[in-house]
Amino acid sequence: MRTRITHVILTPGVDGEGQIPFIENAEVQVDGNLIAYAGPMESAPFFAADETIDGTGRLCMPGLINLHTHTPMTFLRSVGADLTLDDWLHKAIFPLEKQWDEGLIRTATDLGCMEMLRFGTTSFNDMYFYTNAMAETVRDNGMRALLGHGIVDFDESCADMVEGVAMAEKWNRTCNDRIRFSLAPHSEGATTPKLIRKVADTAKQMGLPIHIHVSETDFDLQGCLKRRGVTPPAYLEQMGILDSPVIAAHCVWFNDADIEIFRKHGVTIAHNPVSNLKLASGIAPIAKMLKAECKVALGTDGVASNNNLNLWEELKLMPMLQKGTTLDPTVVTPAQTLAAATVAGAKAMGYDRLGLLRQGYLADLILLDLNTPQMTPRTDLESNLIYSAQGSDVCLTMVDGKVLYRNGQFTTLDPADLLRRAQAGALEMRRRLANA
Amino acid sequence: MRTRITHVILTPGVDGEGQIPFIENAEVQVDGNLIAYAGPMESAPFFAADETIDGTGRLCMPGLINLHTHTPMTFLRSVGADLTLDDWLHKAIFPLEKQWDEGLIRTATDLGCMEMLRFGTTSFNDMYFYTNAMAETVRDNGMRALLGHGIVDFDESCADMVEGVAMAEKWNRTCNDRIRFSLAPHSEGATTPKLIRKVADTAKQMGLPIHIHVSETDFDLQGCLKRRGVTPPAYLEQMGILDSPVIAAHCVWFNDADIEIFRKHGVTIAHNPVSNLKLASGIAPIAKMLKAECKVALGTDGVASNNNLNLWEELKLMPMLQKGTTLDPTVVTPAQTLAAATVAGAKAMGYDRLGLLRQGYLADLILLDLNTPQMTPRTDLESNLIYSAQGSDVCLTMVDGKVLYRNGQFTTLDPADLLRRAQAGALEMRRRLANA
Repeated sequence: MRTRITHVILTPGVDGEGQIPFIENAEVQVDGNLIAYAGPMESAPFFAADETIDGTGRLCMPGLINLHTHTPMTFLRSVGADLTLDDWLHKAIFPLEKQWDEGLIRTATDLGCMEMLRFGTTSFNDMYFYTNAMAETVRDNGMRALLGHGIVDFDESCADMVEGVAMAEKWNRTCNDRIRFSLAPHSEGATTPKLIRKVADTAKQMGLPIHIHVSETDFDLQGCLKRRGVTPPAYLEQMGILDSPVIAAHCVWFNDADIEIFRKHGVTIAHNPVSNLKLASGIAPIAKMLKAECKVALGTDGVASNNNLNLWEELKLMPMLQKGTTLDPTVVTPAQTLAAATVAGAKAMGYDRLGLLRQGYLADLILLDLNTPQMTPRTDLESNLIYSAQGSDVCLTMVDGKVLYRNGQFTTLDPADLLRRAQAGALEMRRRLANA
Repeated sequence: MRTRITHVILTPGVDGEGQIPFIENAEVQVDGNLIAYAGPMESAPFFAADETIDGTGRLCMPGLINLHTHTPMTFLRSVGADLTLDDWLHKAIFPLEKQWDEGLIRTATDLGCMEMLRFGTTSFNDMYFYTNAMAETVRDNGMRALLGHGIVDFDESCADMVEGVAMAEKWNRTCNDRIRFSLAPHSEGATTPKLIRKVADTAKQMGLPIHIHVSETDFDLQGCLKRRGVTPPAYLEQMGILDSPVIAAHCVWFNDADIEIFRKHGVTIAHNPVSNLKLASGIAPIAKMLKAECKVALGTDGVASNNNLNLWEELKLMPMLQKGTTLDPTVVTPAQTLAAATVAGAKAMGYDRLGLLRQGYLADLILLDLNTPQMTPRTDLESNLIYSAQGSDVCLTMVDGKVLYRNGQFTTLDPADLLRRAQAGALEMRRRLANA
């Protein structure tokens, strides 16, 4: 399939420095799953396309990358809202999570993917259970994902890890390299040192990235200090975890030494500002982390702590929250924010040619409708993009060269049927819990 | 005109206590500009309607009320983003604001109203210049507004106030009571004591509400302490301002005594969480204010410090921000949040029968599409409404019994023409500034 997008305003994305570049009257050519050209129309080479899309009044940009979520938690939307974290987990979330089966996981995963595609997310990094069923679902719905089988281990059996390794061996780099696997030990607090050491060795040996929660709450930090005598980053460094590429979710309760450890090892911090506020976990010192040249990317976290998968909310909140808490409006630029939502996540997922619209890069892109009141006037497109745009402005989402969403229609999902099955499935989980 | 909405899920709204109520399979009857019935379909009286709207899969709720904005600032969208407040005002905003004329103000006001209607806001409280032209614009586009002619007075001439009083005399309670006027002294820092005293006396005499900025930044607070020897709330109390109904925007830098002064006088705090973060002003202690039983309502502030007029962003941010900064997830309930975005604003604007969907109340209401991934599953509609819903889920907006927006169409505005004129007008202002 060869697709040509003409007369579009293009931002090829940005690596985090300077300003976000925009090219008026641009053309994008997609050959198979790769960008063949992205630049001014007047310089575009001839391209025989199967389909030409008129991009007039649209912005073409890299698809968003959600670097930390638990996709099937769509079925737990709004569960335990406004509870303390302990009550939220033990009284609301965990009892419901015992009611999952593979069929429910598939529907809940598709529901999350439908929402992500509608709001312009093309890739996500996930940690959950029934991960094999999730991989099959993502294979069929066409998204790009780094999946991790959640490893929780209080008994030193390491059973979850054995399963996670088997899934990684089966799925890693399959589906035209759309699906990859990480190793995903839940957190310091939910694992034994033996397990953590084993994950570190196995990840290094298999060349897999590691996905883990780090210092989400003060409770996490205090627990680690008590159990290990050091902060979570120092503990993970000691155990060899940081010798592999690591995606560390949250990183809210960080001191300067923690920031330096993560900078030194090139850990990518998956920042989840909505979830951290909603669960009353706190506010990660992102401005300081960026200044220290840490790698920062954005995530929604699971729906139950967000309460949606619209990454545009994080795009606006990340810079605003740092300005409002440091009382310095100059911290965290639009370029840093866009990079955190695109290319920083791509690199953390292990893709060297993803997250920017350049020749030879993977064709994961979105079109944004600019003919809306909130995007008018267009005198500073950079600020409009970060602070005014709505997820609903996305009118086309392409992953791996294939259009998966366009103007309310999905090419791999049946929305009416999916929403009906999702509602029924979520009720079924609650029925099972009531009868348990 | 008699309109009937059938088979809808209804929330009549809430005064801030308890939980948000929902009625499945409800009916709403609108006779002229008033609600004739809002309740279960099975109990609905016979109603001969001119139009019947099928509300299946929709939520019917009170229209949102934006209690603090400067609507024409749509033309200043993204201006001076990421600057310090002083640079933002003096280098970016003020020079452009000198380029306004009546024609530009009309277009900029319509652009803001288009955005508000599209995202379900039915009423707004405003303070700006060229307020006569704004009133004419709102008269024609059908929204409900409390307008205040901004009074700035460094020279004791009180010229702005004379104009503001004349406009109030001309416009107050016109257009079927859709348009009202306040007196709007900008802030303690931008006015003389003589002016403030005069506003206090005139407001009392004319029975007008007062709209004023209070303690937005630490700079405001420190300036007032230096100039008047007391905090802004104490100063306004001394000067008699608080003897009239007052809408006080921001209230970020408040101590316990300030909170008590505003509680005692029944001042409504117009909280603008997005603007306060974006301009690095700080975070208002809303959880504490609500606990002290202060009146709290929501606003966007002007577009230049937001950067849009989608009040749903404030609806989600208000409770989240308090949870994240107090580290207590139980503070600020969905009911308190919905009340802040509806009935609290209605009362502050002086309307006793607005902001709830009850018999005899004004027919300002919206329909929300629930058949979206982000609103599925529907197991806890209260949390979905506050934390998952998007402004773009609004599919119908009715003000004073008239449908002004429905499924992408506006009944009093021509979107394509308006967006074109807005882009041209905003460029014209920048051309004038460059040539000045």
